[in-house]
Amino acid sequence: MSAHRLEPLINPGSIAILGASENPGRVGGMPLQLLLQHGFAGPIYPINPKYKEISGLVCYPDIESLPGPVDLLALAVSAKEVVPQLRRAAAKGVRSAVVFASGFAETNEPEGRRLQDEFEACVAEIGIPVAGPNCMGFANLKTHAYTAFASVFRDLEPPSRHSVALVTQSGNVCAAVYTAGRKRGVDFSAAVNTGNEAGIELSEYLEYFADQPETQAIAAYVEGLRDGRRFRRVATRLRDEGRPLIILKIGDTEKGAEAAASHTASLAGSQAVYRAVFDELNVMMADDLAHMAELIRLAGFRARTAGPRIAILTISGALGALLSDKFVQAGAEVPTLPEDVQAVLRGGIPSYGMVSNPVDLTGNVVNQHGFMRDALAALEGCDAVDTIVIYAPGYLLERLSPAAIDAAATSRKLIVAIDNQNARNHAELEAAGIPVFDDTARAVAALSVFGRWSERTRQAVTEVAAPVPRQAMALPARGGALDEAEGKTLLAAHGVPVVAERVATNEEEAAAAARALGWPVVMKVLSPDILHKSDCGGVRLGIGSEEAAREAFRAIMRSARAAHAEALIRGVVVQPQEAPGVEVLLGVTRDPVFGPVMTVGLGGIFTEILRDIEHRTLPVDEARAGAMLRRLKAFPLLDGARGRPRRDVAALCGAMAALSEAVLAAGDAIREVEVNPLLVREEGKGVVALDALVVLEPGRATKAEAA
Amino acid sequence: MSAHRLEPLINPGSIAILGASENPGRVGGMPLQLLLQHGFAGPIYPINPKYKEISGLVCYPDIESLPGPVDLLALAVSAKEVVPQLRRAAAKGVRSAVVFASGFAETNEPEGRRLQDEFEACVAEIGIPVAGPNCMGFANLKTHAYTAFASVFRDLEPPSRHSVALVTQSGNVCAAVYTAGRKRGVDFSAAVNTGNEAGIELSEYLEYFADQPETQAIAAYVEGLRDGRRFRRVATRLRDEGRPLIILKIGDTEKGAEAAASHTASLAGSQAVYRAVFDELNVMMADDLAHMAELIRLAGFRARTAGPRIAILTISGALGALLSDKFVQAGAEVPTLPEDVQAVLRGGIPSYGMVSNPVDLTGNVVNQHGFMRDALAALEGCDAVDTIVIYAPGYLLERLSPAAIDAAATSRKLIVAIDNQNARNHAELEAAGIPVFDDTARAVAALSVFGRWSERTRQAVTEVAAPVPRQAMALPARGGALDEAEGKTLLAAHGVPVVAERVATNEEEAAAAARALGWPVVMKVLSPDILHKSDCGGVRLGIGSEEAAREAFRAIMRSARAAHAEALIRGVVVQPQEAPGVEVLLGVTRDPVFGPVMTVGLGGIFTEILRDIEHRTLPVDEARAGAMLRRLKAFPLLDGARGRPRRDVAALCGAMAALSEAVLAAGDAIREVEVNPLLVREEGKGVVALDALVVLEPGRATKAEAA
Repeated sequence: MSAHRLEPLINPGSIAILGASENPGRVGGMPLQLLLQHGFAGPIYPINPKYKEISGLVCYPDIESLPGPVDLLALAVSAKEVVPQLRRAAAKGVRSAVVFASGFAETNEPEGRRLQDEFEACVAEIGIPVAGPNCMGFANLKTHAYTAFASVFRDLEPPSRHSVALVTQSGNVCAAVYTAGRKRGVDFSAAVNTGNEAGIELSEYLEYFADQPETQAIAAYVEGLRDGRRFRRVATRLRDEGRPLIILKIGDTEKGAEAAASHTASLAGSQAVYRAVFDELNVMMADDLAHMAELIRLAGFRARTAGPRIAILTISGALGALLSDKFVQAGAEVPTLPEDVQAVLRGGIPSYGMVSNPVDLTGNVVNQHGFMRDALAALEGCDAVDTIVIYAPGYLLERLSPAAIDAAATSRKLIVAIDNQNARNHAELEAAGIPVFDDTARAVAALSVFGRWSERTRQAVTEVAAPVPRQAMALPARGGALDEAEGKTLLAAHGVPVVAERVATNEEEAAAAARALGWPVVMKVLSPDILHKSDCGGVRLGIGSEEAAREAFRAIMRSARAAHAEALIRGVVVQPQEAPGVEVLLGVTRDPVFGPVMTVGLGGIFTEILRDIEHRTLPVDEARAGAMLRRLKAFPLLDGARGRPRRDVAALCGAMAALSEAVLAAGDAIREVEVNPLLVREEGKGVVALDALVVLEPGRATKAEAA
Repeated sequence: MSAHRLEPLINPGSIAILGASENPGRVGGMPLQLLLQHGFAGPIYPINPKYKEISGLVCYPDIESLPGPVDLLALAVSAKEVVPQLRRAAAKGVRSAVVFASGFAETNEPEGRRLQDEFEACVAEIGIPVAGPNCMGFANLKTHAYTAFASVFRDLEPPSRHSVALVTQSGNVCAAVYTAGRKRGVDFSAAVNTGNEAGIELSEYLEYFADQPETQAIAAYVEGLRDGRRFRRVATRLRDEGRPLIILKIGDTEKGAEAAASHTASLAGSQAVYRAVFDELNVMMADDLAHMAELIRLAGFRARTAGPRIAILTISGALGALLSDKFVQAGAEVPTLPEDVQAVLRGGIPSYGMVSNPVDLTGNVVNQHGFMRDALAALEGCDAVDTIVIYAPGYLLERLSPAAIDAAATSRKLIVAIDNQNARNHAELEAAGIPVFDDTARAVAALSVFGRWSERTRQAVTEVAAPVPRQAMALPARGGALDEAEGKTLLAAHGVPVVAERVATNEEEAAAAARALGWPVVMKVLSPDILHKSDCGGVRLGIGSEEAAREAFRAIMRSARAAHAEALIRGVVVQPQEAPGVEVLLGVTRDPVFGPVMTVGLGGIFTEILRDIEHRTLPVDEARAGAMLRRLKAFPLLDGARGRPRRDVAALCGAMAALSEAVLAAGDAIREVEVNPLLVREEGKGVVALDALVVLEPGRATKAEAA
């Protein structure tokens, strides 16, 4: 395998610093100091016309004077000097560069935007990897190649235990997580701040570190990704290799949500799609900086079998109950222990203790090393629990520790200690492979996410192959919304069941259609320009006679024209009125990062107010569809809760898979689809789309056949 | 005001210890050591026949040998010796006692239960306050009166700043919260572990500490209360005086939920009622031990104006956005700052910073003391924010501190610092009245609860007076469930609108009733013994003719008798079939601690699966009813969300107030009421109870008139 494109940037053999300074308070000074302090093994070339020498190194007046090509040039120059200097660097044969300067796109001002465009064009032209601009640089903590102007790297790393790469879109977050991880004994192999990512997107760094076999885990702080495909590829690889990927993704404020034609588009907000993709790829999602640091620490224990089923050993019924409640609230389990394990525990615990889980050892047991060893051995052999948590404050933890340390030496399970006082043996426990938490909430938050990751890592993942389209899709060449009848015809052709219906363009056709379909019928205005048909009096229900059908046609035309003078009105759609069922909203939108995303939820208040919805990137097959539905809080309504009839969930899954296939068959032609409502009948009776909106990409040639 | 009954127990002038020991590892040893170490000013009398002297004090052979009456006797003796010794103590004139021994009701064994009954009888007889049994004792940290066998009290308290009383139902929790509070500089005035509360219930301790004017706040760990009335009285008093009451209430496991006749009873689980009562009384609810300790610490800043509207000053856009998200998730607000404040900020913050909130000062501003002072003054004068949070790691916080410390000296607002690195000036900030948090999640959790408390403390509280019943209630003398018709008649008499209906006992009556009410009608089996009418085929909808009415009567009788051979079946209820509306479940149950509690939620899935319900103790007037409804997630369904018709919320509030009045008018006679569904029609059209279940207390004389 040839070296990754970023090799000269992250693992340079030689480094030059343009704008070098002796002053570590300056951007061109700190990296130089770090390189010298930690003894970077390769040549270092300061460049600054003001000096002949800096810190005992020969200082060069300009890039052209460098004695030869270098792997990496750090540019500590102002924004407007960047592009000319990059061109000179490329001409000199420099293999990679990092640009610190701010004043580019992040300013949100025209001049900054222009400078960034120029920067991007230059980078594309010179063809070498250029990090930044507006970044803090990076630290390669294995080779001591530093370009970071961050004082946090002045302290030396402890010896390596597990090796974590940290990639962030904020310099402050980089420093904060690095510091928090260090406090917890984490050994980082590298810390990178990506800046504006004008030349190198975050996922390419992830890819670089995934390529390094010594990388045990990768942690990233993400404000937004641009290359969803590359991200998915590297995250899938890490997942399949059982190497943790830990991401803290900043939340979207609602302010930026764009107006959208359909409910689906506003529901499938970008943060929701990130969450769905991260979940699919078994990414550990961090909640905040400290949570991220704890997950990074736990990633070091990935060889241990962890999981969401927790055994709690404590010295007080109250403390056990408090902790147990918290684990259960976090989605973990505290299962009742099997009788044989309880029997072992009963052998040493007084009658006022508890043996079921949480286990209250009582204060009397803490000195009984032999019994504690038996108790831990029983839990180790117990298939009902994944993770063993010892919760004992201060000196009580010290008393329990010898048996725990012995157990950890051979245990396949993760053993964790929680001490919210100050036992003196935390370091000894950590060294023995027992992470110690000083905060119950932090312990619960980290162990529940790590446990879920660990459990899913042990499960086989079945990829859904993109299906072979059953037929090429014939789409109108124009962009924009199809009318309801066109939309349903398209869906029906791809296997989504739609209601029987007829289009009528005058009163007599309306009456005839109603007669043919059977009474009562529903009548709706047919227009690609009217998305909210009810709002303009464009829908009539319960039409029970030919005369009523004629009257309804006239009334709908009148009120639709009054409300939408400019609209193209084709007539009405006539449908038989369906018996009530459970109504589902089913849609697909196109996420700018991750492509087409399916959204499903129950209709009305469930999607609109309770936001009880699930998202998943396409393809969605029937199994995935079923998994999405089962995660809805309202799933019991489909599943026959409390005496209700069971609904045809199998048919709903079939419709979801068919919709997925339909959208993929259209290539990039379909911008969004919304089936609302999709009526789910009783079990065995199928589903039927009562309404559908299909929006095509604008300005599109008929390229469906190419899909 | 005469001294509180617990005065000799909590603030004794003299202390005797039965079973005293020189060994601090023994229950009778630790208190003695603490008394001597901290220099308790009153006489100390060790009692133990084995010694003549302990630690330089004269040791007495038995209670009778004491030189005179003592205020407090601590009994370090075994369970079965307790009662005889208590009698001897009473005879000697001892004024209070604390009993450490376990082996009572907490064992859940017959012998322990018997000993506790004997203990309770003895305490009632001797008439002095006796704490415990099965308790750790207490520590009066002001007078150094100790009976606690807990090593945590060996370290001396720092000088007093604010004075907090800690009362817990677990000795381990007492020690843990005490330690956690001490770490945060809290000055406890007392720490009490209540044990089995055979003689003194937790609320009596709360009352004692509320009586002490120097008590600034009270914190309690509660597994369960027995005296709801006393608790409500003391909590109301603390609320009205603006003194914080902080409670950590352990969660109920679902295991113990008792089978109940109505949905309401299973929904109004004990933990939900505690939460409702705590909310009503502005109790700060702690989530875990550390949260409790943080709230105790913040209680010391109650003189500052805090609230849920947070201004965030930070040194990084990313850190600001992360923190802002967390506050919003916790229910606080991070409001956009008014233009005049933004103008002041813009004067010093570079264009790449942010002035709207969160405020990104950027790393460049941290040294500009003058500007920081102006910025803080602008926030101090800004009515749009309650609390100012400065979030800056390590040395950056040090740079910002001088201006913050100056501001805190005169600020009426709470100013808080968050530093997840290690600034060296935490102690200086704390001394200046700026609490420092080292964890963002902890800061957010504590500030959002404290902010809400502070805001509500500034609001006037309107008590709902128990209404004067409009009429005495005529109730059948038997206990148990009334039938549907009886239940509705009772509710209607008290102003809850019920559906027009007739009872029919044969086919012809059924047909006549239906004809009189108007088509279509609903018919339901009438029996006090059949609670779930649909399950046995006891309900028929959409009956449209006399013949159908006769047929429905026969069918209902047949299937109800088949399913319930033993049931008393009185016939059927015939009602007009109502047009669809929003269905509400409304009920009242009787909580063993807090008395009658109203529960309300939307029908079906909202109560059954989403648990979107609100509880409130009676009386509930129309204003409180409205507040309950607005807290439902599904309230928009009543309020005309997204183009739906607005429902008659005023009539619903009226029905809730009427139900409250009806239940209170019945004294203790009504055990539970469930109106399900109560149909809420469109605005102005009222509500109507379609079904009702009223269950009377069993074995009751007709005592309604006495209410």
